[in-house]
This record gives sequence, C-alpha cells and structure tokens, in this order.
Amino acid sequence: MSTEPLTAERILEATEEVLRRYGPAKATVVDVARVLGVSHGSVYRHFRTKSALREAVTKRWLSRTEIALARVISDNERESGPAKLREWLLTLFDAKRHKAGDDPELFATFSVLARESSEVVDAHLTELTDQLTRIIEEGVRAGEFATPDPGASAGAVFAATARFHDPGYAPEWRKPTIDAEFDAVAALLLRGLRA
Amino acid sequence: MSTEPLTAERILEATEEVLRRYGPAKATVVDVARVLGVSHGSVYRHFRTKSALREAVTKRWLSRTEIALARVISDNERESGPAKLREWLLTLFDAKRHKAGDDPELFATFSVLARESSEVVDAHLTELTDQLTRIIEEGVRAGEFATPDPGASAGAVFAATARFHDPGYAPEWRKPTIDAEFDAVAALLLRGLRA
Repeated sequence: MSTEPLTAERILEATEEVLRRYGPAKATVVDVARVLGVSHGSVYRHFRTKSALREAVTKRWLSRTEIALARVISDNERESGPAKLREWLLTLFDAKRHKAGDDPELFATFSVLARESSEVVDAHLTELTDQLTRIIEEGVRAGEFATPDPGASAGAVFAATARFHDPGYAPEWRKPTIDAEFDAVAALLLRGLRA
Repeated sequence: MSTEPLTAERILEATEEVLRRYGPAKATVVDVARVLGVSHGSVYRHFRTKSALREAVTKRWLSRTEIALARVISDNERESGPAKLREWLLTLFDAKRHKAGDDPELFATFSVLARESSEVVDAHLTELTDQLTRIIEEGVRAGEFATPDPGASAGAVFAATARFHDPGYAPEWRKPTIDAEFDAVAALLLRGLRA
C-alpha cells in the first residue's frame, strides 16, 4: 500500500494503466483500487461513478493534445500567421499519429471511451477550434489572412483536415503518401486564407 | 419464370433487391436466382463467383454517382471553373446524403460491400479525382485557377471534403449546420485555388 496521498491525478494515472492492461470492456473500479492499494470506496470519494472516472480519464488524455497545441501558439509568437497555422496542424497530426502508432491498443481504448463521452469530446473540439480561431484572428490583424469570419474559417480548416486528425482515419496514417497529402491540403488551405 | 433474356444487368438489379431484402450477411446467389426464376447455374454463367457478383453490384452502385458527376461537368460547360467545381462537390455531397438518408439499410449494405471490394472502391476514387483534375485543369487553362499540379490539388480538394462524402460521416449529414459547414469549406478551397 502506498503512503502517498490519494489524489485525483493518481487515480487517473492508475485508471489509464488499468485500461491499457484490461481494455475498456473489462476495466473496473475495483481494478483501479487494487493497483493503488486502496479500497474502491476511496476511489469513489474522488469520482462518484465509474462513468465519471472514465470521462475524467478521457478528458485528461485529450487535454494532453490541447496543451501541446497551445504550446505551438506560445512558442511561435514571432512566426507569421501562416507558419504558425501550418505548425499547429502538423503538431495535431503528429500527436494523433503518435498516439495511434505507438500504442494502438490504448488508442483503440480511448476511441471507445471518446464515443461514450460525447460532451468531453465536444469540449475538446471546441477548445481546438478556439485555438485555431485565435491563430486566424491574429493573422487577420497582422494583414496576413483575410476572412470575414475567423470562427467559421477555423471550423472549415478543422473540417478540411479531418483526414489528419479524426481517429477513424488512423489506418491511413501509415501510408507512405500521407505526408505529401498533408502538405497539399495544408498548402491549399493556407492559400485560401491568405490576404 | 420471366421470358426476358437473362442479362448481367438484370442479375445485378436482382442482386441489389436481394441485398436490400436480406442484408449483406444473408444474401446468397440462390436468392438472386430465385428472384429471377432461373437456376443458380445461370447466374454463375454471368458471374463466376459470389464475390465477383458482389463486386459487380458494388461497382454499379458507385458508378451511378460517377455518371451523375460526369453530367455536372458536361451540363455546366459554359459555367466558370469555380462554379463548376462547387456544383460538382455539392452534387457529390447530395448524392451521398440521399443514398444514406433515403435508404439507410441499403447504404449500410453497400458500405459493407465496399469494404470487401477495395479495388472497386479505389477505381471509383480514382475516377472521382480524375474528374476533379479535369475541372481544375480547365480552370487553369481559363486563367481562373492557379496550381502547379492540378492532380495534387484535386487530391487535396477531395481529401479536404471527406466530411461531405466519406460514408463514415453519414451520421453528421443530418445536422442542421452541415450546409453552412459545406459552404465554409467549399469557399475556403475555391479561394485557395483561384488565380
């Protein structure tokens, strides 16, 4: 039994580990408690239901991508709008294909969890399109992009790049032509946004 | 028993009917023969295996969309390149969402068949991107579009509009915002292509 205090973060780490080991169909709260060396009651004190725990772990998993993408914006402050937008799209694609390629079982597990937690996924998609909107708005202010509605353009860019971030396309991400495809789509979209 | 001669076309019509009635898992060549009032040997004289028959019916189903899209090109000869391209993309989207919405079971059936016949599907996707390439090439010749590689641009336009033709997105096509989404993506892509 661990002597560290039982935090929500530790429970979420253990839950991810249990999901990785048993898959989404078999993982239980009792398994999570066992990994932590605590009673399942202690877990329920942090997450009142199994589905609340599954939602929280899904949110945490998705938030890693959100944080990596927010960092692209802050790390590239001096770059041009087009360079920043391209880097953001490429970082999203790389994050997704690494998640899918490095640990396909965990990726499949989170795809199942994501289908269960549509509100968590909607919030994630809203965060991503909000980030895109900010990049486009900045580019408009800098005279690099032209669009009457940066939010609608952000939605269009996100929809038009689904092939490079929607988990349904994961099998395509191993194709040798996929980088050329990404380049062609990104170039066309950047050309469509430029002032 | 029918007195009409047994043509490949009549067999394919009957196969579609049988698939609609029984679904892809249960439909057999014997069912097709029964609908036509012929022996299953007569069906096999036209299609040597069950999978050849399933491929042929998938090809016929996909070719309806190809023909409708080729007609957009020939019917809009005097239109501008951008107008023709937009109309082509909208016709593709409408064809797909009508297939999905008017007869969801047959749509699901053909989605299963398409997964079995990857060569037929690849040929279909090649035909569609070839049509797109021709529209873009014409637009380049007319000074309306600018791209160094119309084929790559056609591939990019097709990939960027997957949300509006990939059967995996069919559930989204009923959303009230989908037409606005299509407009935003189409406008961005047309802006990206223009000279």
